Amino acid sequence: MTAESQRPAPSIAYSITVRLHAPAGGAAISQLTSAVERVGGSVTALDVSGSGGEKLQIDVTIGASSTEHADELVAALRELPDIEVGRVSDRTFLMHLGGKISMESKHPIRNRDDLSLIYTPGVARVCRAIADNPEDARRLTIKRNSVAVVTDGTAVLGLGNIGPEAAMPVMEGKAALFHRFGEIDAWPIALDTTDTEEIITAVKNLAPGFGGINLEDISAPRCFEIEERLRDLLDIPVFHDDQHGTAIVVLAALLNALRVVDKELPSVRIVMSGAGAAGTAILKLLLAAGATNVCVADIDGLIHRGRPGLESSLQWIAEHTNPDNLSGPLTAALAGADVFIGVSAPNILTGDDIATMADRAVVFALANPIPEIDPVEAARYAEVVATGRSDFANQINNVLVFPGVFRGLLDAQSNQITQDMLLAAARALAAVVTDDELNASYITPSVFHPEVHTEVAEAVREAAKQAATA
Amino acid sequence: MTAESQRPAPSIAYSITVRLHAPAGGAAISQLTSAVERVGGSVTALDVSGSGGEKLQIDVTIGASSTEHADELVAALRELPDIEVGRVSDRTFLMHLGGKISMESKHPIRNRDDLSLIYTPGVARVCRAIADNPEDARRLTIKRNSVAVVTDGTAVLGLGNIGPEAAMPVMEGKAALFHRFGEIDAWPIALDTTDTEEIITAVKNLAPGFGGINLEDISAPRCFEIEERLRDLLDIPVFHDDQHGTAIVVLAALLNALRVVDKELPSVRIVMSGAGAAGTAILKLLLAAGATNVCVADIDGLIHRGRPGLESSLQWIAEHTNPDNLSGPLTAALAGADVFIGVSAPNILTGDDIATMADRAVVFALANPIPEIDPVEAARYAEVVATGRSDFANQINNVLVFPGVFRGLLDAQSNQITQDMLLAAARALAAVVTDDELNASYITPSVFHPEVHTEVAEAVREAAKQAATA
Repeated sequence: MTAESQRPAPSIAYSITVRLHAPAGGAAISQLTSAVERVGGSVTALDVSGSGGEKLQIDVTIGASSTEHADELVAALRELPDIEVGRVSDRTFLMHLGGKISMESKHPIRNRDDLSLIYTPGVARVCRAIADNPEDARRLTIKRNSVAVVTDGTAVLGLGNIGPEAAMPVMEGKAALFHRFGEIDAWPIALDTTDTEEIITAVKNLAPGFGGINLEDISAPRCFEIEERLRDLLDIPVFHDDQHGTAIVVLAALLNALRVVDKELPSVRIVMSGAGAAGTAILKLLLAAGATNVCVADIDGLIHRGRPGLESSLQWIAEHTNPDNLSGPLTAALAGADVFIGVSAPNILTGDDIATMADRAVVFALANPIPEIDPVEAARYAEVVATGRSDFANQINNVLVFPGVFRGLLDAQSNQITQDMLLAAARALAAVVTDDELNASYITPSVFHPEVHTEVAEAVREAAKQAATA
Repeated sequence: MTAESQRPAPSIAYSITVRLHAPAGGAAISQLTSAVERVGGSVTALDVSGSGGEKLQIDVTIGASSTEHADELVAALRELPDIEVGRVSDRTFLMHLGGKISMESKHPIRNRDDLSLIYTPGVARVCRAIADNPEDARRLTIKRNSVAVVTDGTAVLGLGNIGPEAAMPVMEGKAALFHRFGEIDAWPIALDTTDTEEIITAVKNLAPGFGGINLEDISAPRCFEIEERLRDLLDIPVFHDDQHGTAIVVLAALLNALRVVDKELPSVRIVMSGAGAAGTAILKLLLAAGATNVCVADIDGLIHRGRPGLESSLQWIAEHTNPDNLSGPLTAALAGADVFIGVSAPNILTGDDIATMADRAVVFALANPIPEIDPVEAARYAEVVATGRSDFANQINNVLVFPGVFRGLLDAQSNQITQDMLLAAARALAAVVTDDELNASYITPSVFHPEVHTEVAEAVREAAKQAATA
């Protein structure tokens, strides 16, 4: 294969807008569009933005496959005769200039009367009311609707430990998604420490103004202790999206995949690859939902009772999974299994491995950006295949989950999040896909589906109300 | 005096909206407006919001002087024949329902392409750019324009130590003012600790996502150490509004008061009452601006060299003020003084005391809500009188200062705030009042004056740029 044919499809995430000057009349525009296509780019917009006598000013937006590819595209344009290349703008960077979120006042401040109501002296009465009855903070302040999106920047996307400042674009994006899909006022907090105790203390101390804490991109194993200790310390829900958001969406997708292949969760044999933060949370939610036969492998192979050197979380897995106490490599358990769920590493399985699975197999290969097995290859042998990527069917995407979960928690004024709520969220998300819609290529709804977030919210709200009265 | 005549004027901060049902035709409306006036309320709006056959539905908004007064007004309406009183809403509380601020996404999220740009996969490139060059966080994230409004809830307005949740309405109001007057994305952080070390650690740890820290309503003396240590630790400006915001607006007002009475700062004799957070900051800025003769009194009288038991900040004051080393009560220094500045306690001076001051005296009685001397009484003897209250001329109000100061700091991407910047802000604020406008009742501009915040911002930005290149 040539470099070109290996290149991923052009994406808007790498699109650039190039300002060109070309002679009016003639074939300038067709020359430039063919040049773009020749180098593998795709023209997504073209505006003649000005015309001065013999010259046209043209703004052309081009999708590229990578930053390097974008550079190649600009170079190809520069080689065209008669065409002058001006400013090149990167759309992604343009959208990030000055940040992606803003703070607004809900009320206009036009005159002294407005000031008296939202600030002094009027505000003093509201302060006093909350001092007398602290629960009123959930009614009379932004605590009613706000979530802190907290990271230490140690496990950001596939980028790893890039630090708090560099994590901010992800946290702002997450805050924007909270707002778009959950009508939640989320604010990003990027912490300048990776010390477990300092993170716990910082979050505990900043909590009073927030109605929930969404931990994000904090590396394992610290994330487990941080979440657990904060849940004990705080009277607002603490959710680690990388664990619980992932677990909910995976369970929802699995419930629907099993509807497609006509199998039941309690009776299927499930093999998982990956025992980190996401893997452990998925496992626990599968067991809570009724799965009875799960085997988990990590980089050292299947986790089984008697494997030497298991640390505490792997020991827990050994004790609660693998009923036949299988040992050996991942593939030893995969033969005859109904379901494979990978949250581990790229390209660890082949089509031949998938071929050993049971009939009507389900494969979730969620390693990002490169899955455990090429999904096209997997689909030759498995009936349902899902990945974390947006360019294949059945994307397993946390955005389906976290806005609705927190919407429900905030509306119920919940001071906790329980496994029952996670299960309720997963079942509600699965149920959004109707029997008519459901098929092997459509087990998860689109994040733009109008009912996804309201259904998840409703389910979590009801579960939270039951928990509060239990 | 009767209770009614002592009552403060009705204020919108205590206004209520009452829904009434009254017979159509007849004198119902004039009956209800006279009833309101009889009990000392003022009708500020009246809407016939519905009409059903023989009955009108009327929503009447009434300004009261206090919560108790509002209750009296409702009781008076209930006594009217033919009029039925329905729901009573408190406007201040209505405006606080669900909080006063919101978070918004700057870009619409309509489809998968939008998601790819503001979230994954596009965001990864922006993260990587910041990881490579951390200063880019000030260009590509909300750090460019965001300020954390941080409190521990220990010294909120005149309410004292009411805790972090109860402080939130003030912090949200402050955030809204930052936005309204400075176009700044401020977010309130109310800390669940009053421990100096924990506050310092918490603020240091949450700083990476913010371009500035505004400390607010943290009690003395902890506020001094917290601010000083954070200034050393952080590479963004740290400003304690109760100290420096107050100092800037007082200096600006004093510069203008001296223009009115035709005296010069270096040659006037200034007497201050109050050596807490605000008093100390005002003193330091006055000295930096060229004042040479200042005496400061606290609750134990004039601070002078040789007074026993001075703790370190009072010792500093003794060494840098009171050139004649006067001792005794405040009034001992007041005789013959040109300027009095009080940031201390209500009603500690009388008109007779003010009468002992020099000709063309200036009196700033800033204790809130009750000044050191009744401003009407002070005005019998002093030429210029100012207070912190909005119901007298010459309000000394920090809102004149903090939005412009942070606007300037953020625009200069300043990593510090210096005394030169505070002085520049004060001089710029004073200069907004032109010679034509200036008079004894107009030494400070309105917060709605279009140039106040831009002029302060410009002055601070220039001073910050000079500091960065120095």
